[in-house]
Amino acid sequence: MKKTLLLLAAWPVMTTAQSPIVRSVRSWRQANQVRLIESYRDFLAIPNIAADKAGLRATADAILRYMQAEGVADTRLLEAATPGQPPAVYGEVKTPGARHTVVFYAHYDGQPVDSTKWAAGLHPFRPRLTDGSLAKGANYLDWQRIRSAVSPDWRIYARGASDDKAGVFAILQAYAALKASGIQPSINIKFFFEGEEEAGSPHLAEIFDRYKDLLRADTWVICDGPVHQTGRKQVIFGVRGDTHLELTVYGPKRPLHSGHYGNWIPNPAMELARLLASMKDEKGQVTVKGFYDDVIPLSKSEREALAQMPPVEAQLQRELGIRKPERTGSLNDNLSLPSLNINGFAAAGVGEKSANVIPTQAVASIDLRLVAGNDWQRQQQKVIEHIRMQGFYVTEQAPTDAERMAHDRICRVVRSDGYNAQKTPMDDPLGRRVVRAVQAALPEPALLLPTLGGSLPLFIFEQRLGIRPITVPIANHDNNQHAENENIRIGNLWDGIDILASIMQAFGID
Amino acid sequence: MKKTLLLLAAWPVMTTAQSPIVRSVRSWRQANQVRLIESYRDFLAIPNIAADKAGLRATADAILRYMQAEGVADTRLLEAATPGQPPAVYGEVKTPGARHTVVFYAHYDGQPVDSTKWAAGLHPFRPRLTDGSLAKGANYLDWQRIRSAVSPDWRIYARGASDDKAGVFAILQAYAALKASGIQPSINIKFFFEGEEEAGSPHLAEIFDRYKDLLRADTWVICDGPVHQTGRKQVIFGVRGDTHLELTVYGPKRPLHSGHYGNWIPNPAMELARLLASMKDEKGQVTVKGFYDDVIPLSKSEREALAQMPPVEAQLQRELGIRKPERTGSLNDNLSLPSLNINGFAAAGVGEKSANVIPTQAVASIDLRLVAGNDWQRQQQKVIEHIRMQGFYVTEQAPTDAERMAHDRICRVVRSDGYNAQKTPMDDPLGRRVVRAVQAALPEPALLLPTLGGSLPLFIFEQRLGIRPITVPIANHDNNQHAENENIRIGNLWDGIDILASIMQAFGID
Repeated sequence: MKKTLLLLAAWPVMTTAQSPIVRSVRSWRQANQVRLIESYRDFLAIPNIAADKAGLRATADAILRYMQAEGVADTRLLEAATPGQPPAVYGEVKTPGARHTVVFYAHYDGQPVDSTKWAAGLHPFRPRLTDGSLAKGANYLDWQRIRSAVSPDWRIYARGASDDKAGVFAILQAYAALKASGIQPSINIKFFFEGEEEAGSPHLAEIFDRYKDLLRADTWVICDGPVHQTGRKQVIFGVRGDTHLELTVYGPKRPLHSGHYGNWIPNPAMELARLLASMKDEKGQVTVKGFYDDVIPLSKSEREALAQMPPVEAQLQRELGIRKPERTGSLNDNLSLPSLNINGFAAAGVGEKSANVIPTQAVASIDLRLVAGNDWQRQQQKVIEHIRMQGFYVTEQAPTDAERMAHDRICRVVRSDGYNAQKTPMDDPLGRRVVRAVQAALPEPALLLPTLGGSLPLFIFEQRLGIRPITVPIANHDNNQHAENENIRIGNLWDGIDILASIMQAFGID
Repeated sequence: MKKTLLLLAAWPVMTTAQSPIVRSVRSWRQANQVRLIESYRDFLAIPNIAADKAGLRATADAILRYMQAEGVADTRLLEAATPGQPPAVYGEVKTPGARHTVVFYAHYDGQPVDSTKWAAGLHPFRPRLTDGSLAKGANYLDWQRIRSAVSPDWRIYARGASDDKAGVFAILQAYAALKASGIQPSINIKFFFEGEEEAGSPHLAEIFDRYKDLLRADTWVICDGPVHQTGRKQVIFGVRGDTHLELTVYGPKRPLHSGHYGNWIPNPAMELARLLASMKDEKGQVTVKGFYDDVIPLSKSEREALAQMPPVEAQLQRELGIRKPERTGSLNDNLSLPSLNINGFAAAGVGEKSANVIPTQAVASIDLRLVAGNDWQRQQQKVIEHIRMQGFYVTEQAPTDAERMAHDRICRVVRSDGYNAQKTPMDDPLGRRVVRAVQAALPEPALLLPTLGGSLPLFIFEQRLGIRPITVPIANHDNNQHAENENIRIGNLWDGIDILASIMQAFGID
């Protein structure tokens, strides 16, 4: 018990509430933190990956039940026109006299998982509590421990813990906190929780088109992504676009003994390696023809805002064990450009599964990020042209025997869906209201970032709904989102509730 | 039943026995084929991969029991000096008055398996019977079907079916056939079945050193590898050497979101692709410095023997769906050179497991084949020097934080064991005895091949035992050895029994 008391005394940040509103929210949260954490743990235990549609549906139902219990009005699942897709979850809170309506967005689906890659003791859907970051040597804690005290540096590990069930949870608890504290929002609140963000939001436009009237609002607040690497909170005015290509290069029709055929029958892994290597030079410049051609350069105010960002490069390089970045220039300079990243590649086996074979095929999954000016289909096409220029016959299906006998090199390219980048001007009046409200919850100035390196389908919001969203991330930056060992720092969840409650309370005040 | 009779009538090869001895062996086999196939099926069901030491031990025990039931003398497990390794299985048959002793070698271990890659309905250790090659659209057959008739074109699918439990089985059944037919061998027979061939025979030299006296013989007949692609049988006078390198290129210490960090934090998959691509030019020439320097060119008689081999290139290209081979020249020309083959590579996930990440590492497994003149450790070293020349810091362990901060690019290289190539002169008198005996079992001339593209640790045989082995393969060439869907054509098993029995009976006759 003594140790716990000492720990409690060492949390000065808990006493620096910036507004009376945030102080009330925080007292409510402290009084309810055991229940909140247990409720979040149970929420994380519901599988939420695209390959498990039943799990996604159960996740949506859990959100619906939670909103109903909180008295949220008009709760419903918004289904796409295409049947059988993960629905969005909707609810609303009308505020008498409010002149503004704000939609709060998060997504409840998570990235695909390979549970064999998670650390010993972890499983994507069996949430665990730790006393810090496992990557830095933290220990597992029994869930009972939250009954005596909870440190903001403790973490919860599970798929979606940060990306983006944290957003769903913080938005709903922010509203619950205001309600329980008797604080009236200054806006009409609408909740919108998407279920296909990690799959590239293929049906979001359909949902927007179907429910255009229901979703009418002045702006959307997007709760997704990480805070700044320094731990400082940020408000973000844009996102990069995103699309993917999956490349399959073909070798012999059956796997061959590498001794009996090696170096005579071509090896598709070598051909794919050569193709991938041809896409970038040693300085990290993408060599695909025209790759950077459509880019609209940053505006003066965007460049000024970037200049205000604290430098993080040296810290990140140390933390990640990287001596030399792929490109010169700051991290943010590079996130203002389109990118080409190998998400993964595979051919036959390695390690214990390595055998002496010429593989039948080699596969690479490529991620293309886009900035203002890029069009996702045009960007895909540039890469496909590049593949052709390397001497490959490009097809969308596995090659037929006739195609095999007609071409020296064959690459199957499967294009994913995609969307363009989106930017909200940094002087947008509604954006300024968000910044002001976020600021009221913080002990130091929020950072204002012109664009996030990551992607959200905000282009579709602007195109279909005519609104310009503002992004307010809450997750710790070292959260392993999109990978094994995803986690959320509990203090980030708490701060997220403060910030979102502050937006709900302060946005509409002139 | 009518259909079966028709099928039987269509097997002319069954009536072309070349010698009375082979005719006796064949009648015995026909009378016993149901029992033989069932016994082989049960033998294949015992797991025989390096990762399963208990399975390997059970396989060795099964061979031991079989030899004991056949009355083979001095049956025993030969253990390496290093404890806990898969033993070799030994037995012998003394022939009164015989002046020659021949050891018959096969290996009972198989290549590693990834059972998820096997065709639907197949599993590496649940043998299945088919009416032909599944790759050409064959159907599964119930095992009961062998009770009415057995076509030589039927196949059995399982790990080791060809490589090399087929060798073990054919050797033992050849002896059983002679014994049951009352035919006396002309030689003393020793059986030697290795359990670590697919792991690179790391303890074979130890076993040879420990049991040098027991293993004394005039020559060894190696039953492993495939027959010629035309289906014709071959006798082989050499093998390539073999060794491996596993390369791991390191990226960030934790997986990173490709949007937030892509193209600033280097991607290890791209770096590995570039490294692999640097190892070969577009003409398939390995660009590692000095890679071909030590090669001893083929002798005149070897070149003449190669000129006698039927061309297979056009057939193979059609069969494998390859329009353009990696290198110019015939298949056998290229198998007379050292090679570099990517056995497999992996980084993060592809397909459904692809996520938007910068992977923490990328791994490639590389196979190096060696010809006469090459030294396996020197060949490894050349590749390692090449990796250094591409700007990589080479280490044998995962890099420390200090190493990460001291080097721009890091590649861990794990060297496997290995062995050199071996060649027996084509006019070797003992080799000629093998050729003569093989020939007696065949309806057409056997092909004489100076060296196999594949590898066996025959260098160690010559070095430790002072003998020059001769290889007599029996498996069909399209057997998928080393890969998923490994299979043996039943006719090849039968022919193997004929050939091996002929060697046992005829080798010692002057």
